[in-house]
Amino acid sequence: MTEGFIEERDLDDVAVGAAILGTGGGGDPHIGRLLAHAAVRAHGPVRMVGLDTLPDDAVTAMVAMMGAPTVMLEKLPSAEQAAHAVRALASYLGKTVTHLVCAEAGGVNALVPVVAAAELGLPLVDADAMGRAFPELQMVLPTMYGITATPMSIADEKGNRGIFDTTDNKWAERLARSATIDMGCSAMISLFSMSGAQARESLVPGTLSLCAELGRLVRQARAAHRDPVAAVVDRLGGAELFRGKVVDVGRRTEGGFARGEATLDGFDGHTGERFLLRFQNEHLVAVRDGAVVASVPDLICVLDVEAGTAITTETLRYGQRVRVIAAPCDPRWHRPEGIDLVGPRYFGYDHDPVRVAAGAMA
Amino acid sequence: MTEGFIEERDLDDVAVGAAILGTGGGGDPHIGRLLAHAAVRAHGPVRMVGLDTLPDDAVTAMVAMMGAPTVMLEKLPSAEQAAHAVRALASYLGKTVTHLVCAEAGGVNALVPVVAAAELGLPLVDADAMGRAFPELQMVLPTMYGITATPMSIADEKGNRGIFDTTDNKWAERLARSATIDMGCSAMISLFSMSGAQARESLVPGTLSLCAELGRLVRQARAAHRDPVAAVVDRLGGAELFRGKVVDVGRRTEGGFARGEATLDGFDGHTGERFLLRFQNEHLVAVRDGAVVASVPDLICVLDVEAGTAITTETLRYGQRVRVIAAPCDPRWHRPEGIDLVGPRYFGYDHDPVRVAAGAMA
Repeated sequence: MTEGFIEERDLDDVAVGAAILGTGGGGDPHIGRLLAHAAVRAHGPVRMVGLDTLPDDAVTAMVAMMGAPTVMLEKLPSAEQAAHAVRALASYLGKTVTHLVCAEAGGVNALVPVVAAAELGLPLVDADAMGRAFPELQMVLPTMYGITATPMSIADEKGNRGIFDTTDNKWAERLARSATIDMGCSAMISLFSMSGAQARESLVPGTLSLCAELGRLVRQARAAHRDPVAAVVDRLGGAELFRGKVVDVGRRTEGGFARGEATLDGFDGHTGERFLLRFQNEHLVAVRDGAVVASVPDLICVLDVEAGTAITTETLRYGQRVRVIAAPCDPRWHRPEGIDLVGPRYFGYDHDPVRVAAGAMA
Repeated sequence: MTEGFIEERDLDDVAVGAAILGTGGGGDPHIGRLLAHAAVRAHGPVRMVGLDTLPDDAVTAMVAMMGAPTVMLEKLPSAEQAAHAVRALASYLGKTVTHLVCAEAGGVNALVPVVAAAELGLPLVDADAMGRAFPELQMVLPTMYGITATPMSIADEKGNRGIFDTTDNKWAERLARSATIDMGCSAMISLFSMSGAQARESLVPGTLSLCAELGRLVRQARAAHRDPVAAVVDRLGGAELFRGKVVDVGRRTEGGFARGEATLDGFDGHTGERFLLRFQNEHLVAVRDGAVVASVPDLICVLDVEAGTAITTETLRYGQRVRVIAAPCDPRWHRPEGIDLVGPRYFGYDHDPVRVAAGAMA
């Protein structure tokens, strides 16, 4: 990435890296890449601002796709729709938005802000609100800092718009999720408008740079016939958990989410072992031979066994040969209030978070 | 009613009349009455403006409860919540609302605008948008005049608010219905902001005066030991369809509506006859011995056999002795575009509207 700008040639690396950090969710990276290429080609490179140089009085806003990634595959979002959501929020706030922010790292949602920034001619902050992807909109670090998701806007591709102003961020999730379902299970949202000072305190710095770096590491490892998965694990300080073949995927679009589980049969030192991935848009829990070996809030990523690229939960299918890795999340997620927001019990699993030891390779 | 003002002593008559025109829906008249008494006692009489004297450049807004009347019985709306919805709409419009309007005649929804007008110190237009009650928000005459429901606001009793701005009025219904369900199956909405000129063209004039008159006729007939039901039928130019006892009520809260059907066994000249009422918040279709004898868009009202007061669909119960009357709706509802909006087929019944002949007493 040229210092301070996201150019068209950076987008593929960003998409590859974002899909890895997206832990299976955040939408299909191919769609994000297509949209971002078109937007940057049309409007030129997007200026990227470090979190540390963001002015205190900046007016930031996040922009993201909400809904089931399975549906986004068929109902493509547009740059116009993303810009629409940001404009609707700015108009309701009666303020000019000065900087856009990524809500999450994920195939679509790391790139939707790039698309919107190009379309609106706004700079983008090199940060995100999770350091990964999570399925519900209140699951961002700013919630832990008391920053409100609302006023938030929601826009569909048909021209319908909504604004929600709620008593807490979980109510914002609830109302926006229902509107998303009505809108056909995917919608564009703009939310969590905050000052530069609030952004510096509550966001994860350097996410877009990290996405680009991960993408570059994968690309370079492949070019040099080195192992791209090992390069990713090394960079993230994580561990490889499993190698195996997908033998079953149960998937349902439920409550506006893509929910399900995938079963893998091991190979390469895992022969005879069975691995289970439980997901809700993102991978939440990894179980090896009946024992939970990793869980939210840490990252569980499913990568192609050789290419090292991420496989999203909606594209998991029988016969894929994959490697499952885990990596530590932003440490703030492990605070008690973080575990309340995104720990296994929130998602209905009856166990505490399982953290993975760095370097424990398969 | 003192010319031009709704005073506290008028409210009981208005509530009785509104419950009759509400065709079983529009919410419990007792709740509307309680709220209106409190608001008028606190803030003084509400000024009422005739539709014909409304200034062309008036900025009107409707305010109403949305949801299942069964739920409103347990989760009382408040004057504050009604005012909240109007303020949220005005703020989004960036305009000062000059006059409030009733969306429908109905126990709660004829009086919610009185409550909001008292609370906000605004005049109320002597009109409504249906001349009766209907269950969905696009089912108003202004929809036939191309007037958009949105921007609309929605507010719950907890402090959550939303704004919708949609491509058509059916989308407004869809998004607002989901939000209403999330908010606990009842919410306060403000919508259909229009100019005085648009209001004059598209609304039903004199609704609040008619409600007060119907209430007075019932009260006076009872005081004089005359038949209050006959007085209502006579005033509305309608007909009595049936006299009978409620022997069965099937009721479910479904999709945010109170849906169901009631079965009556006849007496007083209807002995041996069986009568069926199908409702979705409001009575939609009346069937006598297997033949449809009245249907939307005309009014089907269930009145207490002696008191002449309306029985709402959510308070129908075994053993009630009732008289069922039908009355003609605003003639514009019988235009083809009106039948598309509110005819029996819209509600899933496979027959054309059945109109009742005036004066055909039981």
